[in-house]
Amino acid sequence: MRLVTCLHEGRARVGVVREDRIRLPVIEDWSRAMIRLIDAGPAAWARLARAGADVELPLAEAELLAPLPRPRKNIMCLGWNYAEHAQESAASQGREAKLPEHPMVFTKNVTSVNAPYGEIPCHDGVTGELDWEVELGVIIGKGGRGIPRERALDHVFGYTVINDISARDLQFRHKQYFIGKSLDGACPMGPLIVTADEIPDPQALWLRSWVNGSLKQDSSTRHMIFPVAEIIHVLSRGMTLEPGDVIATGTPSGVGFARTPPEFLKRGDVVECEVEGIGRLRNRIV
Amino acid sequence: MRLVTCLHEGRARVGVVREDRIRLPVIEDWSRAMIRLIDAGPAAWARLARAGADVELPLAEAELLAPLPRPRKNIMCLGWNYAEHAQESAASQGREAKLPEHPMVFTKNVTSVNAPYGEIPCHDGVTGELDWEVELGVIIGKGGRGIPRERALDHVFGYTVINDISARDLQFRHKQYFIGKSLDGACPMGPLIVTADEIPDPQALWLRSWVNGSLKQDSSTRHMIFPVAEIIHVLSRGMTLEPGDVIATGTPSGVGFARTPPEFLKRGDVVECEVEGIGRLRNRIV
Repeated sequence: MRLVTCLHEGRARVGVVREDRIRLPVIEDWSRAMIRLIDAGPAAWARLARAGADVELPLAEAELLAPLPRPRKNIMCLGWNYAEHAQESAASQGREAKLPEHPMVFTKNVTSVNAPYGEIPCHDGVTGELDWEVELGVIIGKGGRGIPRERALDHVFGYTVINDISARDLQFRHKQYFIGKSLDGACPMGPLIVTADEIPDPQALWLRSWVNGSLKQDSSTRHMIFPVAEIIHVLSRGMTLEPGDVIATGTPSGVGFARTPPEFLKRGDVVECEVEGIGRLRNRIV
Repeated sequence: MRLVTCLHEGRARVGVVREDRIRLPVIEDWSRAMIRLIDAGPAAWARLARAGADVELPLAEAELLAPLPRPRKNIMCLGWNYAEHAQESAASQGREAKLPEHPMVFTKNVTSVNAPYGEIPCHDGVTGELDWEVELGVIIGKGGRGIPRERALDHVFGYTVINDISARDLQFRHKQYFIGKSLDGACPMGPLIVTADEIPDPQALWLRSWVNGSLKQDSSTRHMIFPVAEIIHVLSRGMTLEPGDVIATGTPSGVGFARTPPEFLKRGDVVECEVEGIGRLRNRIV
Protein backbone atom coordinates (compact mmCIF):
# COMPACT_ATOMS: atom_id res chain seq x y z
CA MET A 1 0.00 0.00 0.00
CA ARG A 2 0.91 3.63 -0.50
CA LEU A 3 -0.34 5.60 2.50
CA VAL A 4 -0.67 9.31 3.11
CA THR A 5 -1.86 11.56 5.89
CA CYS A 6 -3.99 14.30 4.35
CA LEU A 7 -6.29 17.06 5.48
CA HIS A 8 -9.95 16.48 4.63
CA GLU A 9 -12.57 18.94 5.83
CA GLY A 10 -10.02 20.40 8.22
CA ARG A 11 -9.06 17.13 9.88
CA ALA A 12 -6.22 14.70 9.37
CA ARG A 13 -7.16 11.40 7.71
CA VAL A 14 -5.18 8.35 6.70
CA GLY A 15 -5.54 7.73 2.97
CA VAL A 16 -4.62 4.96 0.55
CA VAL A 17 -3.16 6.09 -2.79
CA ARG A 18 -4.23 4.19 -5.92
CA GLU A 19 -2.84 5.66 -9.12
CA ASP A 20 -3.66 9.36 -9.02
CA ARG A 21 -6.36 9.21 -6.35
CA ILE A 22 -6.50 9.03 -2.57
CA ARG A 23 -9.15 6.81 -1.02
CA LEU A 24 -10.12 7.72 2.52
CA PRO A 25 -11.31 4.49 4.10
CA VAL A 26 -14.47 4.26 6.14
CA ILE A 27 -13.73 5.62 9.61
CA GLU A 28 -12.26 3.24 12.15
CA ASP A 29 -10.60 4.45 15.31
CA TRP A 30 -7.21 4.62 13.59
CA SER A 31 -8.43 6.49 10.50
CA ARG A 32 -7.35 9.88 11.77
CA ALA A 33 -3.78 9.08 12.71
CA MET A 34 -1.14 6.99 10.96
CA ILE A 35 0.48 6.29 14.33
CA ARG A 36 -2.69 4.58 15.53
CA LEU A 37 -2.93 2.58 12.31
CA ILE A 38 0.62 1.36 12.89
CA ASP A 39 -0.19 0.54 16.54
CA ALA A 40 -3.24 -1.41 15.40
CA GLY A 41 -0.97 -4.03 13.81
CA PRO A 42 -1.00 -6.35 10.80
CA ALA A 43 -4.66 -7.36 11.07
CA ALA A 44 -5.73 -3.71 10.79
CA TRP A 45 -3.30 -3.13 7.91
CA ALA A 46 -4.84 -6.06 6.03
CA ARG A 47 -8.33 -4.72 6.75
CA LEU A 48 -7.29 -1.33 5.42
CA ALA A 49 -6.07 -2.87 2.16
CA ARG A 50 -9.55 -4.26 1.58
CA ALA A 51 -11.58 -1.40 3.11
CA GLY A 52 -14.23 0.46 1.18
CA ALA A 53 -13.65 4.15 0.56
CA ASP A 54 -15.71 6.80 2.21
CA VAL A 55 -14.31 9.61 0.04
CA GLU A 56 -12.03 9.73 -3.01
CA LEU A 57 -9.83 12.72 -3.76
CA PRO A 58 -7.49 13.53 -6.64
CA LEU A 59 -3.94 13.10 -5.27
CA ALA A 60 -2.80 16.26 -7.04
CA GLU A 61 -5.30 18.41 -5.17
CA ALA A 62 -4.89 16.89 -1.70
CA GLU A 63 -3.23 18.75 1.13
CA LEU A 64 -0.65 16.29 2.39
CA LEU A 65 0.86 16.37 5.85
CA ALA A 66 3.94 14.41 6.84
CA PRO A 67 2.77 10.78 7.00
CA LEU A 68 3.58 10.92 10.74
CA PRO A 69 2.99 14.59 11.56
CA ARG A 70 3.93 14.14 15.21
CA PRO A 71 6.12 11.12 15.98
CA ARG A 72 6.11 9.98 19.62
CA LYS A 73 9.83 10.47 19.97
CA ASN A 74 12.68 12.13 18.12
CA ILE A 75 13.63 10.90 14.67
CA MET A 76 16.75 8.71 14.91
CA CYS A 77 19.29 9.63 12.23
CA LEU A 78 22.45 8.05 10.90
CA GLY A 79 25.45 10.27 10.29
CA TRP A 80 28.10 9.28 7.75
CA ASN A 81 26.34 6.20 6.41
CA TYR A 82 27.58 6.52 2.81
CA ALA A 83 31.34 6.31 2.25
CA GLU A 84 31.47 9.13 -0.30
CA HIS A 85 29.59 11.45 2.05
CA ALA A 86 31.96 10.60 4.92
CA GLN A 87 34.84 11.40 2.55
CA GLU A 88 33.44 14.72 1.31
CA SER A 89 32.65 15.79 4.90
CA ALA A 90 36.14 15.03 6.12
CA ALA A 91 37.77 16.68 3.10
CA SER A 92 35.77 19.89 3.56
CA GLN A 93 37.08 20.11 7.12
CA GLY A 94 40.66 19.26 6.13
CA ARG A 95 40.53 15.94 7.93
CA GLU A 96 41.32 12.49 6.62
CA ALA A 97 38.24 10.38 5.96
CA LYS A 98 37.82 7.57 8.44
CA LEU A 99 34.77 5.46 7.79
CA PRO A 100 32.72 4.82 10.92
CA GLU A 101 33.16 1.34 12.38
CA HIS A 102 29.87 1.68 14.26
CA PRO A 103 26.71 3.57 13.30
CA MET A 104 26.75 7.20 14.41
CA VAL A 105 23.26 8.10 15.56
CA PHE A 106 21.85 11.48 16.58
CA THR A 107 18.25 12.70 16.72
CA LYS A 108 16.05 15.40 15.23
CA ASN A 109 13.39 16.96 17.45
CA VAL A 110 9.77 15.96 16.76
CA THR A 111 9.02 19.67 16.31
CA SER A 112 11.22 19.72 13.18
CA VAL A 113 8.80 17.52 11.20
CA ASN A 114 7.50 19.28 8.08
CA ALA A 115 4.99 18.42 5.35
CA PRO A 116 6.25 17.01 2.04
CA TYR A 117 5.49 20.30 0.26
CA GLY A 118 5.72 22.55 3.33
CA GLU A 119 7.74 25.74 3.58
CA ILE A 120 11.08 25.59 5.39
CA PRO A 121 11.87 28.72 7.43
CA CYS A 122 15.35 30.08 6.63
CA HIS A 123 15.87 31.02 10.29
CA ASP A 124 17.65 34.30 9.52
CA GLY A 125 19.85 35.33 12.40
CA VAL A 126 19.97 31.78 13.73
CA THR A 127 21.79 30.03 10.87
CA GLY A 128 23.40 31.09 7.63
CA GLU A 129 24.24 27.57 6.52
CA LEU A 130 21.07 25.61 5.81
CA ASP A 131 21.87 22.43 3.87
CA TRP A 132 20.01 19.50 2.30
CA GLU A 133 20.28 15.70 2.81
CA VAL A 134 18.08 13.22 0.94
CA GLU A 135 17.54 10.04 2.97
CA LEU A 136 15.53 6.84 2.96
CA GLY A 137 13.23 6.91 6.00
CA VAL A 138 12.26 3.71 7.79
CA ILE A 139 9.07 3.42 9.86
CA ILE A 140 9.05 0.65 12.47
CA GLY A 141 5.86 -1.45 12.51
CA LYS A 142 6.63 -4.08 15.09
CA GLY A 143 8.64 -3.12 18.15
CA GLY A 144 11.28 -5.14 19.90
CA ARG A 145 14.62 -5.28 21.67
CA GLY A 146 17.60 -7.39 20.67
CA ILE A 147 16.30 -7.81 17.12
CA PRO A 148 18.57 -10.13 15.08
CA ARG A 149 19.83 -8.79 11.73
CA GLU A 150 18.16 -11.58 9.77
CA ARG A 151 14.71 -10.74 11.19
CA ALA A 152 15.14 -6.97 11.28
CA LEU A 153 13.26 -6.16 8.08
CA ASP A 154 10.20 -7.99 9.47
CA HIS A 155 9.96 -5.08 11.95
CA VAL A 156 9.55 -2.44 9.22
CA PHE A 157 6.10 -1.00 8.59
CA GLY A 158 7.19 0.96 5.55
CA TYR A 159 9.52 3.45 3.93
CA THR A 160 9.35 7.16 3.27
CA VAL A 161 11.58 10.03 2.10
CA ILE A 162 13.23 12.41 4.56
CA ASN A 163 15.14 15.61 3.90
CA ASP A 164 17.46 15.89 6.90
CA ILE A 165 17.81 19.68 6.67
CA SER A 166 20.93 20.68 8.60
CA ALA A 167 22.17 24.02 9.91
CA ARG A 168 25.88 23.34 9.42
CA ASP A 169 27.14 26.28 11.49
CA LEU A 170 25.08 25.09 14.46
CA GLN A 171 25.81 21.41 13.83
CA PHE A 172 29.58 21.87 14.02
CA ARG A 173 29.64 24.65 16.63
CA HIS A 174 27.66 22.57 19.13
CA LYS A 175 29.65 19.33 18.46
CA GLN A 176 26.76 16.97 19.17
CA TYR A 177 24.37 17.32 16.21
CA PHE A 178 20.96 17.66 17.88
CA ILE A 179 20.74 21.48 17.82
CA GLY A 180 21.92 21.86 14.21
CA LYS A 181 19.48 19.21 13.03
CA SER A 182 16.37 20.29 14.94
CA LEU A 183 15.28 23.72 13.74
CA ASP A 184 11.54 24.09 13.22
CA GLY A 185 10.61 22.79 9.75
CA ALA A 186 13.95 20.99 9.25
CA CYS A 187 12.48 17.54 8.66
CA PRO A 188 10.28 17.37 5.55
CA MET A 189 8.89 13.84 5.33
CA GLY A 190 6.71 11.95 2.85
CA PRO A 191 4.98 12.42 0.51
CA LEU A 192 3.81 8.96 1.54
CA ILE A 193 4.73 5.70 3.22
CA VAL A 194 5.17 2.66 0.98
CA THR A 195 4.51 -0.43 3.07
CA ALA A 196 7.38 -2.88 3.44
CA ASP A 197 5.74 -5.63 1.34
CA GLU A 198 6.14 -3.41 -1.73
CA ILE A 199 9.88 -2.79 -1.12
CA PRO A 200 11.41 -6.23 -0.60
CA ASP A 201 14.96 -4.85 -0.91
CA PRO A 202 15.53 -1.42 0.67
CA GLN A 203 19.18 -1.57 -0.43
CA ALA A 204 18.40 -1.24 -4.13
CA LEU A 205 16.77 2.20 -4.43
CA TRP A 206 18.28 5.23 -6.09
CA LEU A 207 17.93 8.52 -4.22
CA ARG A 208 18.45 12.02 -5.58
CA SER A 209 18.14 15.66 -4.57
CA TRP A 210 17.88 18.89 -6.52
CA VAL A 211 18.08 22.58 -5.64
CA ASN A 212 16.19 24.86 -8.03
CA GLY A 213 16.07 21.99 -10.51
CA SER A 214 19.82 21.35 -10.48
CA LEU A 215 20.81 17.79 -9.50
CA LYS A 216 22.86 17.75 -6.27
CA GLN A 217 22.82 14.18 -4.94
CA ASP A 218 22.51 11.02 -7.02
CA SER A 219 23.28 7.67 -5.45
CA SER A 220 21.76 4.37 -4.40
CA THR A 221 20.87 2.88 -1.03
CA ARG A 222 23.16 -0.04 -1.95
CA HIS A 223 26.06 2.24 -0.98
CA MET A 224 25.00 2.45 2.68
CA ILE A 225 27.80 1.45 5.05
CA PHE A 226 25.25 0.08 7.55
CA PRO A 227 22.20 -1.29 5.72
CA VAL A 228 18.69 -0.98 7.16
CA ALA A 229 18.72 -4.42 8.79
CA GLU A 230 22.02 -3.67 10.56
CA ILE A 231 20.75 -0.27 11.78
CA ILE A 232 17.64 -1.86 13.32
CA HIS A 233 19.77 -4.59 14.89
CA VAL A 234 22.22 -2.12 16.44
CA LEU A 235 19.57 0.35 17.65
CA SER A 236 17.57 -2.42 19.32
CA ARG A 237 20.53 -3.69 21.39
CA GLY A 238 19.32 -2.68 24.85
CA MET A 239 16.90 -0.06 23.52
CA THR A 240 13.32 -1.07 22.79
CA LEU A 241 12.13 0.00 19.35
CA GLU A 242 8.42 0.82 19.14
CA PRO A 243 5.77 0.94 16.41
CA GLY A 244 5.91 4.34 14.72
CA ASP A 245 9.61 4.96 15.37
CA VAL A 246 11.22 6.83 12.48
CA ILE A 247 14.80 6.21 11.36
CA ALA A 248 16.58 8.39 8.78
CA THR A 249 19.26 6.19 7.26
CA GLY A 250 21.89 8.76 6.24
CA THR A 251 22.66 10.74 3.12
CA PRO A 252 24.98 10.17 0.13
CA SER A 253 27.54 12.71 -1.13
CA GLY A 254 26.58 15.96 -2.83
CA VAL A 255 25.45 18.06 0.12
CA GLY A 256 26.05 21.81 0.11
CA PHE A 257 28.69 22.40 2.77
CA ALA A 258 31.14 19.96 1.18
CA ARG A 259 31.01 21.63 -2.26
CA THR A 260 33.71 23.94 -3.62
CA PRO A 261 32.72 26.64 -2.96
CA PRO A 262 30.15 25.62 -0.32
CA GLU A 263 26.49 26.13 -1.24
CA PHE A 264 23.69 26.77 1.21
CA LEU A 265 19.95 27.18 0.87
CA LYS A 266 18.61 30.73 0.75
CA ARG A 267 15.16 32.28 0.79
CA GLY A 268 13.22 31.38 -2.37
CA ASP A 269 15.21 28.22 -3.16
CA VAL A 270 13.26 25.04 -3.87
CA VAL A 271 14.80 21.81 -2.62
CA GLU A 272 13.57 18.41 -3.86
CA CYS A 273 14.40 14.95 -2.54
CA GLU A 274 13.30 11.69 -4.12
CA VAL A 275 13.74 8.01 -3.37
CA GLU A 276 12.94 5.49 -6.07
CA GLY A 277 9.46 4.02 -5.86
CA ILE A 278 8.39 6.25 -2.97
CA GLY A 279 8.07 9.83 -4.16
CA ARG A 280 9.49 13.30 -4.13
CA LEU A 281 9.52 16.02 -1.45
CA ARG A 282 9.42 19.61 -2.71
CA ASN A 283 10.01 22.39 -0.20
CA ARG A 284 10.56 26.12 -0.60
CA ILE A 285 12.81 28.07 1.74
CA VAL A 286 10.95 31.11 3.12
CA MET B 1 4.32 22.75 45.15
CA ARG B 2 6.03 19.38 45.26
CA LEU B 3 4.39 17.12 42.68
CA VAL B 4 4.63 13.39 42.07
CA THR B 5 3.17 10.87 39.68
CA CYS B 6 2.15 7.80 41.68
CA LEU B 7 0.21 4.62 41.17
CA HIS B 8 -3.08 4.48 43.03
CA GLU B 9 -5.41 1.53 42.54
CA GLY B 10 -3.42 0.53 39.49
CA ARG B 11 -3.63 3.89 37.74
CA ALA B 12 -1.29 6.85 37.49
CA ARG B 13 -2.34 9.93 39.45
CA VAL B 14 -0.81 13.35 39.94
CA GLY B 15 -0.21 13.99 43.65
CA VAL B 16 0.80 16.96 45.78
CA VAL B 17 3.33 16.23 48.52
CA ARG B 18 2.85 17.97 51.89
CA GLU B 19 5.35 16.91 54.52
CA ASP B 20 5.27 13.11 54.55
CA ARG B 21 1.95 12.65 52.77
CA ILE B 22 0.74 12.69 49.18
CA ARG B 23 -2.64 14.30 48.51
CA LEU B 24 -4.38 13.11 45.38
CA PRO B 25 -6.57 16.00 44.27
CA VAL B 26 -10.17 15.54 43.19
CA ILE B 27 -10.20 14.27 39.61
CA GLU B 28 -10.00 16.83 36.84
CA ASP B 29 -9.06 15.88 33.30
CA TRP B 30 -5.38 16.40 34.02
CA SER B 31 -5.29 14.41 37.25
CA ARG B 32 -3.98 11.26 35.63
CA ALA B 33 -1.05 12.73 33.75
CA MET B 34 1.52 15.34 34.76
CA ILE B 35 1.95 16.26 31.08
CA ARG B 36 -1.70 17.29 30.90
CA LEU B 37 -1.42 19.30 34.11
CA ILE B 38 1.52 21.16 32.56
CA ASP B 39 -0.43 21.71 29.33
CA ALA B 40 -3.36 23.06 31.33
CA GLY B 41 -1.31 26.13 32.29
CA PRO B 42 -0.93 28.46 35.26
CA ALA B 43 -4.64 28.73 36.08
CA ALA B 44 -4.85 24.96 36.54
CA TRP B 45 -1.63 24.95 38.58
CA ALA B 46 -3.10 27.57 40.92
CA ARG B 47 -6.32 25.54 41.17
CA LEU B 48 -4.29 22.46 42.06
CA ALA B 49 -2.52 24.29 44.88
CA ARG B 50 -5.92 25.00 46.47
CA ALA B 51 -7.69 21.76 45.48
CA GLY B 52 -9.25 19.46 48.03
CA ALA B 53 -7.83 15.95 48.35
CA ASP B 54 -9.72 12.92 47.27
CA VAL B 55 -7.23 10.51 48.88
CA GLU B 56 -4.21 10.93 51.15
CA LEU B 57 -1.33 8.45 51.19
CA PRO B 58 1.84 8.20 53.25
CA LEU B 59 4.69 9.27 50.94
CA ALA B 60 6.89 6.45 52.24
CA GLU B 61 4.42 3.80 51.08
CA ALA B 62 3.53 5.27 47.69
CA GLU B 63 4.65 3.67 44.44
CA LEU B 64 6.22 6.57 42.57
CA LEU B 65 6.67 6.70 38.82
CA ALA B 66 8.90 9.19 37.05
CA PRO B 67 7.04 12.51 37.34
CA LEU B 68 6.76 12.43 33.52
CA PRO B 69 6.69 8.69 32.80
CA ARG B 70 6.46 9.22 29.04
CA PRO B 71 7.71 12.58 27.77
CA ARG B 72 6.44 13.60 24.31
CA LYS B 73 9.93 13.84 22.92
CA ASN B 74 13.45 12.81 23.84
CA ILE B 75 15.09 14.31 26.92
CA MET B 76 17.52 17.06 25.86
CA CYS B 77 20.84 16.74 27.67
CA LEU B 78 23.88 18.92 28.08
CA GLY B 79 27.31 17.37 27.73
CA TRP B 80 30.32 18.92 29.47
CA ASN B 81 28.45 21.64 31.35
CA TYR B 82 30.69 21.67 34.43
CA ALA B 83 34.34 22.64 33.92
CA GLU B 84 35.73 19.96 36.23
CA HIS B 85 33.77 17.25 34.45
CA ALA B 86 35.01 18.46 31.06
CA GLN B 87 38.54 18.30 32.48
CA GLU B 88 38.23 14.81 33.97
CA SER B 89 36.68 13.51 30.72
CA ALA B 90 39.47 14.92 28.60
CA ALA B 91 42.17 13.70 30.98
CA SER B 92 40.79 10.16 31.01
CA GLN B 93 41.07 10.10 27.21
CA GLY B 94 44.54 11.67 27.19
CA ARG B 95 43.27 14.86 25.58
CA GLU B 96 43.70 18.43 26.72
CA ALA B 97 40.56 19.89 28.29
CA LYS B 98 38.92 22.50 26.09
CA LEU B 99 35.80 23.98 27.65
CA PRO B 100 32.88 24.12 25.24
CA GLU B 101 32.18 27.57 23.82
CA HIS B 102 28.63 26.55 22.95
CA PRO B 103 26.31 24.10 24.71
CA MET B 104 26.76 20.51 23.53
CA VAL B 105 23.31 18.91 23.39
CA PHE B 106 22.36 15.29 22.73
CA THR B 107 19.19 13.39 23.58
CA LYS B 108 18.07 10.35 25.55
CA ASN B 109 15.26 8.24 24.14
CA VAL B 110 11.84 8.53 25.85
CA THR B 111 12.01 4.76 26.38
CA SER B 112 14.98 5.23 28.75
CA VAL B 113 12.84 6.97 31.41
CA ASN B 114 12.84 5.08 34.71
CA ALA B 115 11.09 5.51 38.05
CA PRO B 116 12.94 7.24 40.93
CA TYR B 117 13.39 3.92 42.76
CA GLY B 118 13.16 1.67 39.68
CA GLU B 119 15.60 -1.07 38.77
CA ILE B 120 18.20 -0.33 36.09
CA PRO B 121 18.98 -3.29 33.82
CA CYS B 122 22.73 -3.92 33.58
CA HIS B 123 22.39 -4.85 29.88
CA ASP B 124 24.91 -7.70 30.04
CA GLY B 125 26.35 -8.37 26.60
CA VAL B 126 25.40 -4.89 25.39
CA THR B 127 27.56 -2.73 27.66
CA GLY B 128 30.21 -3.37 30.29
CA GLU B 129 30.63 0.29 31.22
CA LEU B 130 27.45 1.61 32.85
CA ASP B 131 28.15 4.93 34.58
CA TRP B 132 26.26 7.50 36.70
CA GLU B 133 25.65 11.25 36.23
CA VAL B 134 23.62 13.29 38.73
CA GLU B 135 21.92 16.26 37.03
CA LEU B 136 19.41 18.99 37.71
CA GLY B 137 16.40 18.40 35.44
CA VAL B 138 14.34 21.29 34.08
CA ILE B 139 10.71 20.88 33.02
CA ILE B 140 9.40 23.52 30.60
CA GLY B 141 5.98 24.96 31.53
CA LYS B 142 5.46 27.64 28.91
CA GLY B 143 6.66 27.00 25.38
CA GLY B 144 8.25 29.44 23.01
CA ARG B 145 10.85 30.16 20.37
CA GLY B 146 13.53 32.84 20.56
CA ILE B 147 13.22 33.11 24.33
CA PRO B 148 15.49 35.88 25.71
CA ARG B 149 17.89 34.93 28.52
CA GLU B 150 16.31 37.37 30.95
CA ARG B 151 12.84 35.84 30.56
CA ALA B 152 13.96 32.23 30.23
CA LEU B 153 13.27 31.16 33.81
CA ASP B 154 9.64 32.30 33.40
CA HIS B 155 9.29 29.33 31.01
CA VAL B 156 10.19 26.75 33.65
CA PHE B 157 7.41 24.68 35.21
CA GLY B 158 9.68 23.06 37.76
CA TYR B 159 12.81 21.12 38.57
CA THR B 160 13.58 17.46 39.15
CA VAL B 161 16.56 15.13 39.56
CA ILE B 162 17.87 13.04 36.66
CA ASN B 163 20.49 10.29 36.66
CA ASP B 164 21.86 10.38 33.11
CA ILE B 165 22.99 6.74 33.12
CA SER B 166 25.57 6.33 30.35
CA ALA B 167 27.02 3.25 28.65
CA ARG B 168 30.52 4.67 28.09
CA ASP B 169 31.68 1.97 25.67
CA LEU B 170 28.66 2.65 23.43
CA GLN B 171 28.82 6.42 23.93
CA PHE B 172 32.38 6.70 22.66
CA ARG B 173 32.25 3.91 20.07
CA HIS B 174 29.26 5.48 18.30
CA LYS B 175 30.69 9.08 18.47
CA GLN B 176 27.30 10.79 18.69
CA TYR B 177 26.00 10.08 22.19
CA PHE B 178 22.38 9.01 21.55
CA ILE B 179 22.94 5.24 21.56
CA GLY B 180 25.15 5.20 24.66
CA LYS B 181 22.66 7.35 26.58
CA SER B 182 19.42 5.63 25.59
CA LEU B 183 19.41 2.09 26.95
CA ASP B 184 16.13 1.02 28.51
CA GLY B 185 15.98 2.23 32.12
CA ALA B 186 18.91 4.64 31.72
CA CYS B 187 17.02 7.75 32.80
CA PRO B 188 15.80 7.57 36.41
CA MET B 189 13.85 10.77 37.11
CA GLY B 190 12.14 12.28 40.16
CA PRO B 191 11.29 11.53 42.86
CA LEU B 192 9.20 14.67 42.33
CA ILE B 193 8.96 17.99 40.55
CA VAL B 194 9.41 21.12 42.66
CA THR B 195 7.60 23.98 40.94
CA ALA B 196 9.71 26.93 39.85
CA ASP B 197 8.22 29.36 42.39
CA GLU B 198 9.91 27.34 45.15
CA ILE B 199 13.36 27.45 43.49
CA PRO B 200 13.98 31.10 42.66
CA ASP B 201 17.67 30.45 41.89
CA PRO B 202 18.43 27.16 40.12
CA GLN B 203 22.13 28.05 40.15
CA ALA B 204 22.52 27.68 43.91
CA LEU B 205 21.74 24.01 44.56
CA TRP B 206 24.22 21.38 45.63
CA LEU B 207 24.02 18.03 43.85
CA ARG B 208 25.58 14.73 44.90
CA SER B 209 25.70 11.08 43.92
CA TRP B 210 26.64 7.91 45.78
CA VAL B 211 27.32 4.32 44.77
CA ASN B 212 26.66 1.78 47.53
CA GLY B 213 26.70 4.64 50.02
CA SER B 214 30.09 5.99 48.94
CA LEU B 215 30.03 9.65 47.81
CA LYS B 216 31.03 10.00 44.14
CA GLN B 217 29.92 13.45 42.97
CA ASP B 218 29.60 16.56 45.16
CA SER B 219 29.22 19.94 43.51
CA SER B 220 26.83 22.86 43.06
CA THR B 221 24.76 24.05 40.11
CA ARG B 222 26.59 27.38 40.44
CA HIS B 223 29.48 25.69 38.61
CA MET B 224 27.50 25.17 35.40
CA ILE B 225 29.27 26.63 32.35
CA PHE B 226 25.90 27.41 30.73
CA PRO B 227 23.28 28.19 33.38
CA VAL B 228 19.64 27.14 33.00
CA ALA B 229 18.53 30.49 31.52
CA GLU B 230 21.27 30.35 28.87
CA ILE B 231 20.40 26.74 27.98
CA ILE B 232 16.74 27.63 27.42
CA HIS B 233 17.74 30.69 25.39
CA VAL B 234 20.09 28.71 23.14
CA LEU B 235 17.73 25.73 22.65
CA SER B 236 14.85 28.01 21.70
CA ARG B 237 16.76 29.78 18.91
CA GLY B 238 14.85 28.45 15.90
CA MET B 239 13.49 25.45 17.81
CA THR B 240 10.13 25.77 19.56
CA LEU B 241 10.21 24.58 23.15
CA GLU B 242 6.95 23.05 24.37
CA PRO B 243 5.28 22.48 27.75
CA GLY B 244 6.55 19.24 29.23
CA ASP B 245 9.95 19.33 27.54
CA VAL B 246 12.65 17.90 29.79
CA ILE B 247 16.20 19.23 29.87
CA ALA B 248 19.04 17.52 31.78
CA THR B 249 21.56 20.24 32.53
CA GLY B 250 24.81 18.28 32.69
CA THR B 251 26.81 16.56 35.40
CA PRO B 252 29.72 17.65 37.63
CA SER B 253 32.98 15.71 38.04
CA GLY B 254 33.20 12.39 39.85
CA VAL B 255 31.72 10.01 37.27
CA GLY B 256 33.04 6.48 37.00
CA PHE B 257 34.86 6.32 33.68
CA ALA B 258 37.13 9.24 34.60
CA ARG B 259 38.30 7.69 37.88
CA THR B 260 41.68 5.99 38.36
CA PRO B 261 41.09 3.15 37.93
CA PRO B 262 37.73 3.54 36.15
CA GLU B 263 34.65 2.36 38.05
CA PHE B 264 31.45 1.11 36.48
CA LEU B 265 28.12 -0.01 37.87
CA LYS B 266 27.59 -3.75 38.26
CA ARG B 267 24.64 -5.94 39.15
CA GLY B 268 23.54 -5.35 42.75
CA ASP B 269 25.00 -1.84 43.04
CA VAL B 270 22.76 0.92 44.36
CA VAL B 271 23.23 4.36 42.81
CA GLU B 272 21.76 7.46 44.45
CA CYS B 273 21.49 10.99 43.05
CA GLU B 274 20.26 14.01 44.98
CA VAL B 275 19.74 17.69 44.22
CA GLU B 276 19.25 20.08 47.14
CA GLY B 277 15.64 20.83 47.95
CA ILE B 278 14.26 18.34 45.42
CA GLY B 279 15.01 14.81 46.54
CA ARG B 280 17.01 11.68 46.02
CA LEU B 281 16.82 8.94 43.37
CA ARG B 282 17.79 5.44 44.50
CA ASN B 283 18.17 2.75 41.84
CA ARG B 284 19.51 -0.77 41.98
CA ILE B 285 21.34 -2.31 39.03
CA VAL B 286 19.81 -5.69 38.15
